[in-house]
Amino acid sequence: MAEESVVLVGRKPAMNYVLATTLPLAEGKKVVLKARGRAISKAVDVVEVVRRRFVQNAVVEKVNIGTEEGRVGNDGRPRNISTIEIILAPPAQGGKKK
Amino acid sequence: MAEESVVLVGRKPAMNYVLATTLPLAEGKKVVLKARGRAISKAVDVVEVVRRRFVQNAVVEKVNIGTEEGRVGNDGRPRNISTIEIILAPPAQGGKKK
Repeated sequence: MAEESVVLVGRKPAMNYVLATTLPLAEGKKVVLKARGRAISKAVDVVEVVRRRFVQNAVVEKVNIGTEEGRVGNDGRPRNISTIEIILAPPAQGGKKK
Repeated sequence: MAEESVVLVGRKPAMNYVLATTLPLAEGKKVVLKARGRAISKAVDVVEVVRRRFVQNAVVEKVNIGTEEGRVGNDGRPRNISTIEIILAPPAQGGKKK
């Protein structure tokens, strides 16, 4: 079973998360990127930048989407928020290297 | 092979896309939701609202993410933009009904 690293994508610049994702991948670990709400688009951007520029053969193993009960401060009502989970695997697991 | 309906998620209110997704699903068709850039989060919201409130047993068959070469007007430079494609299937395809 491969070790997994979890990256929570939030409000920081995308490049922070790109780096946090690239390092474990380069060590042969899987990375699980998680994001909620508006950060979902950023999580997809992060994966795409990593795959285009840093770890070219990284594999998107699985993308899960879901809902979480969040809370919004303004009116205090509980509100559902969408979530995404992207599982990114290092290239050539147990296979050829390039 | 099931018929597919394609919904392009853009700048309109999410509820427009929720409706556009619910109708074909209710007729037993698959729906492919596509979105780019910031609309990616909205596409996930649409799927989650449909599954929670309208077509409860709809199945997320597959989520694909990718990159497209877009163009941004401000500086005219081509710029990559992330994309998502969510394939949503009606409940109980060829199976039990509820």
